Amino acid sequence: MLEHTIDVPVLASAVEAQDSADAADTLEALSGSDAAEVLGKMGVDSAGEALAEMVLPLASSALVALIGDDIGFAAAMLESMAPDDATDLLQELDHADRESVLAEMHPSAANGLRRLLDHHEESAGGMMTTEFLAVREDMTADEATEAIRRSAVDDDPHFTFVIDWEGHLRGTLSLRRLLIADPGELISHICNREVEAIPPELDREAVAREFEKYDFLVLPVVDAEHRLLGVVEVDDVIEIIRAESTEDANRMVGAGKEEAVYSTAREKLKGRFPWLLVNLFTSSIAAIVVLQFEGLITEIAVLAVLMPVIANQAGNAGQQSLAVTLRGIVLEQIRPNRAMPLILREAMVGLINGMLGGLVVGLVICVVGSVFGDASWRLGVVAALAMTAALAIGTFTGSSLPLLMRRLGFDPATASTIFLTMVTDSMSFFVFLGLASALHSWLA
Amino acid sequence: MLEHTIDVPVLASAVEAQDSADAADTLEALSGSDAAEVLGKMGVDSAGEALAEMVLPLASSALVALIGDDIGFAAAMLESMAPDDATDLLQELDHADRESVLAEMHPSAANGLRRLLDHHEESAGGMMTTEFLAVREDMTADEATEAIRRSAVDDDPHFTFVIDWEGHLRGTLSLRRLLIADPGELISHICNREVEAIPPELDREAVAREFEKYDFLVLPVVDAEHRLLGVVEVDDVIEIIRAESTEDANRMVGAGKEEAVYSTAREKLKGRFPWLLVNLFTSSIAAIVVLQFEGLITEIAVLAVLMPVIANQAGNAGQQSLAVTLRGIVLEQIRPNRAMPLILREAMVGLINGMLGGLVVGLVICVVGSVFGDASWRLGVVAALAMTAALAIGTFTGSSLPLLMRRLGFDPATASTIFLTMVTDSMSFFVFLGLASALHSWLA
Repeated sequence: MLEHTIDVPVLASAVEAQDSADAADTLEALSGSDAAEVLGKMGVDSAGEALAEMVLPLASSALVALIGDDIGFAAAMLESMAPDDATDLLQELDHADRESVLAEMHPSAANGLRRLLDHHEESAGGMMTTEFLAVREDMTADEATEAIRRSAVDDDPHFTFVIDWEGHLRGTLSLRRLLIADPGELISHICNREVEAIPPELDREAVAREFEKYDFLVLPVVDAEHRLLGVVEVDDVIEIIRAESTEDANRMVGAGKEEAVYSTAREKLKGRFPWLLVNLFTSSIAAIVVLQFEGLITEIAVLAVLMPVIANQAGNAGQQSLAVTLRGIVLEQIRPNRAMPLILREAMVGLINGMLGGLVVGLVICVVGSVFGDASWRLGVVAALAMTAALAIGTFTGSSLPLLMRRLGFDPATASTIFLTMVTDSMSFFVFLGLASALHSWLA
Repeated sequence: MLEHTIDVPVLASAVEAQDSADAADTLEALSGSDAAEVLGKMGVDSAGEALAEMVLPLASSALVALIGDDIGFAAAMLESMAPDDATDLLQELDHADRESVLAEMHPSAANGLRRLLDHHEESAGGMMTTEFLAVREDMTADEATEAIRRSAVDDDPHFTFVIDWEGHLRGTLSLRRLLIADPGELISHICNREVEAIPPELDREAVAREFEKYDFLVLPVVDAEHRLLGVVEVDDVIEIIRAESTEDANRMVGAGKEEAVYSTAREKLKGRFPWLLVNLFTSSIAAIVVLQFEGLITEIAVLAVLMPVIANQAGNAGQQSLAVTLRGIVLEQIRPNRAMPLILREAMVGLINGMLGGLVVGLVICVVGSVFGDASWRLGVVAALAMTAALAIGTFTGSSLPLLMRRLGFDPATASTIFLTMVTDSMSFFVFLGLASALHSWLA
């Protein structure tokens, strides 16, 4: 037990009075063991609701502490939670903790959770809940209403699923339709037979795409015999869309796609080092370009001063094109076979930005010319020309690289920044030093 | 009229038979004028549904063409659409097109759309639909059921709003609760009085956060007197979350946050050039660092060859930390006042990756030493040490920069890559050239 400056029972009753999302915010500000103590003083239901709203890594560290403090409470709390939320938490525990808390539960609840745990965390099966309303197709409207009245599901769904005696999914029935039905009407006559369903193996990103494309609020999960296994709900999909979108930013620079700010140093090293090794290799290409001009640099060392300015500007302009193009790919805004006009537009934007930036650099070199000796305006001209060309190459590469990677069947985001920098660095150095070398006698 | 190789009536009937989301995919593959011709041959309702599912820039170019072809059809189609979808499209048109198509509509429909158009596109008012179920609190369950039966709203909502005679929002009523109510029960007795509502001015990102935090499926929009104006639905929020997440990637590199791959060259230049100018300024700091070592480079030009390798590696390692930290901020995973351990962990990861990368670079320099002369192993030691330090600085900066910007009240993503590169470039050059300068007599 920790020494506290907080009064646990007082805090627990304050948290209990909050909405579950706000309670979660409060608990997230505490350490795992403090959060566990507060949870342990709350009601089982409200503790479970608050835990379900917490960020997963923080929720699981509170749960681990709670299992140590009072395993009976932890088990009762997990039983009271929506099965998909309880499964998300159990998946974060190590094997021993998970088994010991499952052993404390009612066997039927534990078995239900074990079935959900069998599905991969990032699949439809791992996301679905097994709590849903369902009525049989051979019921009358009155019998279905009675079945819904008796149901223990405490959600407010906008429709109920329709199944047969073997549990096969046969359709959906909107509660609005049921509300206005005659009491004796057969469910099979008023239900909607056209219902999309997904298999439990479907990857969560594909699940999210289905929701986005068809504006579903829930999607039933069925097995190979079309038996209804569970339901994926739109609120879980929203979390995934946010998580997957931010994964792309990780991938661009070669951090592990699963890496979170909370990942251990070991996980971070494992995810990032391979790409840093690739980066070392690709940046050595730029070094080899510079090496070809070693003699020139010995003679005009100020070239080494300007090199990073041009390469950096081309790199940044290229990253702008890359970000905008990847955005277009993610938002599915790029028509098939219509990519070329977009790439040419990016190259033109790079050309103009390069001329404008080159003008600024050229003028600055002229003005502070005394530093560079008398021929400074000539150096300004070379830098301005090189920057113009380098930015056009940068934006052309930034927009065509992800489209090319997609065309070749690779993920367009992965390591895109690394490959882009390889091109912008080496081409910037080549254009700038090459031009300086060609105009050597005019420059020196 | 264009010359076609496609048979418009045949294609129109094929598209008509598709689900609206799939129909939209087909239409998106056509030019705006071809899509307009196909839409014009479809039924008004299905044309509107397909148009609503299309990506906005493509949908609006098809609509512009359709207004030119057959303005009566365009008006009827917009009338048949959900008001929020029609408003999204009208907002994309220029003033003349918008007014001429509104003039073709039924006056009451046109006025409803004009009211929605008054709200800012990126606010709750601009996102809401004005089609929703509502019953009065003084109705009985039977009267409410009858009102719902007669309602023209063709959605399947899971609850109805409850209002008073003046249209003030008084609560919500789940259809499930209504289904199991006694016929004579008063709505005011069975409705849920605790209902969250948002003002029409609320920014769309804040709207999305409300949905995410509280897992709402719909949120009512009310005026200052708490009169019900409309409803924001979760499916519109999903689009915004995807769009806002990708906006961050734009912002990081200084592209306009609104910039899409389809933006005009003029818009792209306007959004990007200011940040490229900032980048020019920040990268000149790195140039000034190099300038201090001009004499050293004249003597040992191979330093200029290795400079970009070290700066590039530190920049990439820093961008990895930046991406992961921004991800933690967006997903709200970073506890207040608990940032320091995360930053130190990042710095440690940078230190280790720097040592590993430095070892590789050092060994390569020794092996290909003949290129660099006899003292190559000494140069390898200097490069390895500099890389270790530069990567630790890079990851420390990459993780602390966005947290510092957030603390100071700035957007943590904006131009973060530019400021990070300023630090990684100038510090890499300073550490590497400074070390080489200090060990000059040992090196040369």
